[in-house]
Amino acid sequence: MTQPEGGLVLAVDLGGSKTLCAVVSRGGQILARDLRPTPAGEGPEAGVATLLASAHGALQAAEVGLRDIAAIGLGVPGVLDTEAGMLRTSPNLPGWREVPIRDLIQREFGVPTYLVNDASAAAIGEAHFGAGRGVRHFLYVTLSTGIGGGIVVDGKLYTGKFGAAGEFGHMTIQADGPPCACGGRGCWETLASGTALAQRARAKLRAGAASLVLDYAQGDIDAVDAVVVHCAAVDGDALAREIIELTAWYIGVGLANLVNIFNPELIVLGGGLTNIGDLLLAPAYRVAGEGAYEAAFKAVRFSLAELGADVGVQGAAAFAAEQAGIPFVV
Amino acid sequence: MTQPEGGLVLAVDLGGSKTLCAVVSRGGQILARDLRPTPAGEGPEAGVATLLASAHGALQAAEVGLRDIAAIGLGVPGVLDTEAGMLRTSPNLPGWREVPIRDLIQREFGVPTYLVNDASAAAIGEAHFGAGRGVRHFLYVTLSTGIGGGIVVDGKLYTGKFGAAGEFGHMTIQADGPPCACGGRGCWETLASGTALAQRARAKLRAGAASLVLDYAQGDIDAVDAVVVHCAAVDGDALAREIIELTAWYIGVGLANLVNIFNPELIVLGGGLTNIGDLLLAPAYRVAGEGAYEAAFKAVRFSLAELGADVGVQGAAAFAAEQAGIPFVV
Repeated sequence: MTQPEGGLVLAVDLGGSKTLCAVVSRGGQILARDLRPTPAGEGPEAGVATLLASAHGALQAAEVGLRDIAAIGLGVPGVLDTEAGMLRTSPNLPGWREVPIRDLIQREFGVPTYLVNDASAAAIGEAHFGAGRGVRHFLYVTLSTGIGGGIVVDGKLYTGKFGAAGEFGHMTIQADGPPCACGGRGCWETLASGTALAQRARAKLRAGAASLVLDYAQGDIDAVDAVVVHCAAVDGDALAREIIELTAWYIGVGLANLVNIFNPELIVLGGGLTNIGDLLLAPAYRVAGEGAYEAAFKAVRFSLAELGADVGVQGAAAFAAEQAGIPFVV
Repeated sequence: MTQPEGGLVLAVDLGGSKTLCAVVSRGGQILARDLRPTPAGEGPEAGVATLLASAHGALQAAEVGLRDIAAIGLGVPGVLDTEAGMLRTSPNLPGWREVPIRDLIQREFGVPTYLVNDASAAAIGEAHFGAGRGVRHFLYVTLSTGIGGGIVVDGKLYTGKFGAAGEFGHMTIQADGPPCACGGRGCWETLASGTALAQRARAKLRAGAASLVLDYAQGDIDAVDAVVVHCAAVDGDALAREIIELTAWYIGVGLANLVNIFNPELIVLGGGLTNIGDLLLAPAYRVAGEGAYEAAFKAVRFSLAELGADVGVQGAAAFAAEQAGIPFVV
């Protein structure tokens, strides 16, 4: 090991389907990783046991001990109270409610542990290692089954009072719109996410619309998702294109809001829905430009996320290092 | 003068009806002020001449010279580019377009001059001297003829890329709502401002509704404004109360968005519409609580602005001091 003792970070990316642990150097390099399936349906006890086993696995794989670890970063999806170290509730982890996840980890390893929302982790990961390098103020937006986000101010993650800042998906953009699981109405996520796009397609198909979408879903309306709609749109299917255009319109409305609220230098877009590419993003940017202040829109740059499957651990590591006062040297 | 040479700030609050200049100590005390009517209809040349005369007037009244002034803070309503020092356009100052207002002042006085939006100035004023003292992260929202805002992060004003951050009034909350002068649709300001409230009342009266509102406006529908509606509501008028409730609902929707996006410790509400008090604010807070994440809503405190007519110069002074690196000692 060329790293100085105590200079490494153990990073955890707890997801609904997989648990990834990694040992990360102060230069941001991943020295070793351990990936396991998350036993999401078995509740928090089994999930935390898997997480601890994975963390020990990563340490062993990196051939380092706990004395080499200066901080632990813990990226988790859902509603957190990062100050209290609690996972309040998570759509990806059914049955996990009020789990004191930070203290469970910190007690096991005896190392300062920092909890961060997964979208916020992605934001700070992009700030250190990805599309946000060298940018003072930017926003990260993940367009996926839901919509999440992160806010970077002066190169640091803005977390708000207890770590819940950046819930862009639960910004109401249609006050009389459909109810959202969060308790609000017409949330951006209910209108502009991959889930919203797929629901639109399924509703049209159930109403009898003819479309290649159904062929790509092998005749099963319930199997229709954003990927299937994308495939049909690439083949020129009119319904698929109309649905993507409408979803893009709602994406654009929300992006305009973020431009007017933050006057950001950059908005980084991540999440699976961005795989649709220009069919979705070009109209979304056009709508954002129509809705936002002209000067603020001219000043903002849109970019796709640059980090891949390791974004969760890279971001959690960067966040923990920042919090522990051992900033990365990239 | 007990102030050390060079430690004072000259602050300007340029409004659509009045121009206020003040000399402010590093302790935040106003040593002298000069107030003149803004010749708003006569264009930028006459307006800037008045501003310069007022500034000289404030210096004379304070019996200080330019060598005592370390920085000038310039609070201006409208769309600014604070980096370039430009007033791009302002609803309060008709005919002012692309005015290089910072350089006009800086050239006259030869002192570093900092331009700031008036709502942002109010935010940083409240941070230093008002309801935001000692609070790390808070938002300032002005509910007035329009809706403006300011963002304080870690005790400092977050201005975005070029000073346009905090345009909460131009956050779309009803994507298919009425068009806004900004180019967007269903902006918060078009649905929840004093202007929106008054328009609702006038429309109902034109449609023949019976209401005390018309009596308070002495039978002149065009004279109906938020104050008149408030008076009628205090008298128990049903229409006035219904209109205030509906406006409160839209205010609450926007506040919920801000709670979800920023997870703030505090939201300070200013602007004339807050004079309606609990009739407006109690239902607005209730709607915000229904729409926002429960934990984030529980964590936020709402407070009325504490600063009065001097908020503009106090805020502009605090901003200039911060930018010039001569922070106030309060």
